[in-house]
Amino acid sequence: MLKAILVIADGMADWPLKELDGKTPLEVAVKPTMNQIARDGVCGIVDPISPGTPPGSDTATIAFLGYSPMEVYSGRGALEAVGSGVEVLRGDVAFRCNFASVDKDLVVLDRRAGRISNEDASRLTRSLQRIKLKKSFDASFVFKNTVQHRATLVIRGPKLSTAISDSDPEQNGKEVLEIEPLDRRSESARTAAIVSRLMSEFRNVLAEHPVNKERARRKQSPANFVLCRGAGTIPKIIPLPELYNIKSACIAAVSLIKGVCKVAGMDLISVKGATGTPKTDYMAKAKATVKALKTHDFVLLHVKATDVASHDGNARLKVETIGKIDGMLDHVLKNIDLDATHLALTADHTTSCVTRNHEGDPVPIAIIGPYVRRDSVREYSERACAEGGLNRIRGTDLMRILMSFLGRTKKFGS
Amino acid sequence: MLKAILVIADGMADWPLKELDGKTPLEVAVKPTMNQIARDGVCGIVDPISPGTPPGSDTATIAFLGYSPMEVYSGRGALEAVGSGVEVLRGDVAFRCNFASVDKDLVVLDRRAGRISNEDASRLTRSLQRIKLKKSFDASFVFKNTVQHRATLVIRGPKLSTAISDSDPEQNGKEVLEIEPLDRRSESARTAAIVSRLMSEFRNVLAEHPVNKERARRKQSPANFVLCRGAGTIPKIIPLPELYNIKSACIAAVSLIKGVCKVAGMDLISVKGATGTPKTDYMAKAKATVKALKTHDFVLLHVKATDVASHDGNARLKVETIGKIDGMLDHVLKNIDLDATHLALTADHTTSCVTRNHEGDPVPIAIIGPYVRRDSVREYSERACAEGGLNRIRGTDLMRILMSFLGRTKKFGS
Repeated sequence: MLKAILVIADGMADWPLKELDGKTPLEVAVKPTMNQIARDGVCGIVDPISPGTPPGSDTATIAFLGYSPMEVYSGRGALEAVGSGVEVLRGDVAFRCNFASVDKDLVVLDRRAGRISNEDASRLTRSLQRIKLKKSFDASFVFKNTVQHRATLVIRGPKLSTAISDSDPEQNGKEVLEIEPLDRRSESARTAAIVSRLMSEFRNVLAEHPVNKERARRKQSPANFVLCRGAGTIPKIIPLPELYNIKSACIAAVSLIKGVCKVAGMDLISVKGATGTPKTDYMAKAKATVKALKTHDFVLLHVKATDVASHDGNARLKVETIGKIDGMLDHVLKNIDLDATHLALTADHTTSCVTRNHEGDPVPIAIIGPYVRRDSVREYSERACAEGGLNRIRGTDLMRILMSFLGRTKKFGS
Repeated sequence: MLKAILVIADGMADWPLKELDGKTPLEVAVKPTMNQIARDGVCGIVDPISPGTPPGSDTATIAFLGYSPMEVYSGRGALEAVGSGVEVLRGDVAFRCNFASVDKDLVVLDRRAGRISNEDASRLTRSLQRIKLKKSFDASFVFKNTVQHRATLVIRGPKLSTAISDSDPEQNGKEVLEIEPLDRRSESARTAAIVSRLMSEFRNVLAEHPVNKERARRKQSPANFVLCRGAGTIPKIIPLPELYNIKSACIAAVSLIKGVCKVAGMDLISVKGATGTPKTDYMAKAKATVKALKTHDFVLLHVKATDVASHDGNARLKVETIGKIDGMLDHVLKNIDLDATHLALTADHTTSCVTRNHEGDPVPIAIIGPYVRRDSVREYSERACAEGGLNRIRGTDLMRILMSFLGRTKKFGS
C-alpha cells in the first residue's frame, strides 16, 4: 500500500539576504538530505494561496490539504480552539482570548497579564468556568486556557454569528473595545450581547479572585480582564478520510495547525519535546513520523522553528534550524520504505528575515516517490526548485498530486 | 489563411519505468519527428483537467477543445451515441448498451453475449427498432448497435432525467440491476419507468428471436438481454464554428472522441483502416489529415493505439507505437505548409504501464508554427517538455492558445 508524508517547514522560504551575501537561508544551510530529496525527486515552486498573497499558516495548511482557503476559511479562533483540544461544533462561534491587565477605566496595561503562569491561569479559568449565562440568552460557553495568558472561548447555541467586533485593542495603553455587531442581522446583535455580558461577568469574578490578590502581593500584574478576538467557526469541509479513503495523522506542536488537521479528519499525535520553537526535539518528531506511517496512509509533519527564527529576523538561527530539520528528514528517510512512500517537502510561506513577516513569494517544493518524474534539480532551495519539473503549482493542487501518486484520486470522465 | 492541427496521442504520457531503465516510453522511443516538433516549437506540460486529476479521454478532449469539463461534461452515453452516428438532441437521454446473455433468474452469464457478431447484432437490432412504446409514456427511442455486442439507446421526449441507475452490473455472475431513479424528481421516476419498460419489451422480443435460436444451434451464448449504463445528455456547449468562425474536422476511430468533436460542431472524417488499435493504418490517418486541412481551418487528429498498449501494461508495444505515430507525423509535416500551419502535439492523459490506468500527472505539449516563441527544448518527452517556454498550462487553455496563433481570438478590452 502506497503512503505519503508531507513535511511543512513553517516560513522556511525567504528572500536573498544581504547578510548572507545575497543568498537565502535555504541556500546557505547545510542540508544534504533536502538536496537528496531535490535530486531524487520532482521539484517546483508553489503559491500556497495565490501569487503575491502572503499566506497565514492556517490558510496555507488548509490549501495544502486540498481545500480552497478562499471558500472555507472562517477565522483563526475556531481552528486554534480545536487544536488546543476544545470541541467546536458546527454553529459554534469561537474566539482567541488573552488574560490581560486593565485599569479602572478599562485601559489595557498589559495584554498578557505579565505573561501569567499556566498555573495561575488554570486557577482563574476554573472559576470562570463556573459562571452560568442567564437562561434568556439561550446559549452556553466553553472557556479554556492554553499556554500562559492564552485561552479559547467557544459560544454555543442557536443563531450565532461571527460578524462581531473584537474587544482586544491589540495594543497596550488603549481602551478595551466594545464588542459590537458588524452587520444588521439579529444573530450578530445576539452574539455580541452574549459575549459582552460574559466578558463583564468574567471581569466581576476576576476582580475579587484570590489569585489576583496573591499576584498583587507578588507585585505581578493582575489578570483582571479577558480580551477576545477573531470570532470564527469551523470550516465546512469534507474530511480527508471521506475524500480519499485514507487514514491520516498530524504531527505538529502548534495549536493552529493541529486545529486545521483535526477539522480535516486527521489524528493528532502528541510528541513529547515538540515545542514549536527552535529548541523543539527534532528527532522525537522524526521518530513519531516514522511510527505514525506504520498505522496511517498520510502523515503531515509540521515544524514551526524556521518561522520563529524569521519573525525574530535571525537569519543565522534560521540557517541553523534548517540544518536541524535536515537531520530530522535524514532519520525519516532512513527509516521508511522509499519504494512505497512519497514524501513532499515544502514551506507554508515565505517569511522574510528583512520584514520579519509572511510574504507573498512562492515556496519551494520537492516530491520523491517510486514513480515521480525525477528532474535535473540538484539542490533544495527557492531558486533551484523553480527550475524543476513541477513548474509552478498552487497550494490547493498539492494534495491531489500526492493522492494521485497514491492512486487515490478518482478518474473524471471515462 | 493560417490553419492548425491538434494531434492527440491517447494515453501516450507515462511514468519512468523500471523495465525501461527509469525512462518513459516517450523517452526511449525513436521519434525524430516529435523531437523536431519540440526543437522547432514551444514546449510545456499540460494538466488536461487539473493537477492530480486522472482524466478520461472524453473530459480531456472536451478540455482541449476549450470547454470546461467540470461545467459541461454530462456522461459518456450521449457522446458515444453521437460518435457512433446516432442523433442526440438537447433533452434526450442516451445510454451505452450491451447485448448480454442472462439466465432465467436474470443472472448475467456473459456481458458480451459471446462477443456476438455485427451481423447477428444488426438483425436483432432491426427487430428491437420495431417496438413501439405505449402512447401514455409520451416518449420514443432510438436503438442502434455499433461494434459486436455494443449498442446505443437514446430516449426522447419531454421531461427526462439522467438521474437513473444502470441495469448493467458490470460483472458476469451478478444479477441484472433494477433501473431506479437516483433522486426524487418526477422526471427521474418517469425516465426510470420508460427505460425499465423498454428493457422488458426488448427481453420479450429477444427471447423468441430466430437469431437466438440459430445461436443456440451453433452452441453460442444467446443475446437475450440488453444491459444499459451511463445515462447522459449532450453537453451544452457553443460549437467551435460559432466561437472562432472556423471550419473544423476530426479524424478519430473511437466513437467517444468522435462524439465530443461532433458536439463541438466538427466534421467527422472517416478513414478506411483507422481501427483505434495499434494495428491502425497510421499512414491513412496522416493522408486524411493533410487532405482535411485543405478544406478545414482546424483538424484534430486522434490516435488511440498508445492507450491500448498502456492498458495492457505493454511498454515495448507502447514504444513501438510511438515510433509509428512519429512516422505518421513525418508524413503530415512533409505535406503541409509549415509557414501557414500550427501543429500542437500532446497526449490526453498519462496512462501508466505500471498501474495500467489513467493517472493524474501532466502531459507534454509542443507547438510549432510560424511565429511561436521557440524555446531550448530539444526532445519531445514528459520531462524535456517540462523545461519549455509554455511552462505548465491547463487543458482548457490549449484551444485559445491555438486560435490566438491563428488570429481568431477576440481582444478583451481595448
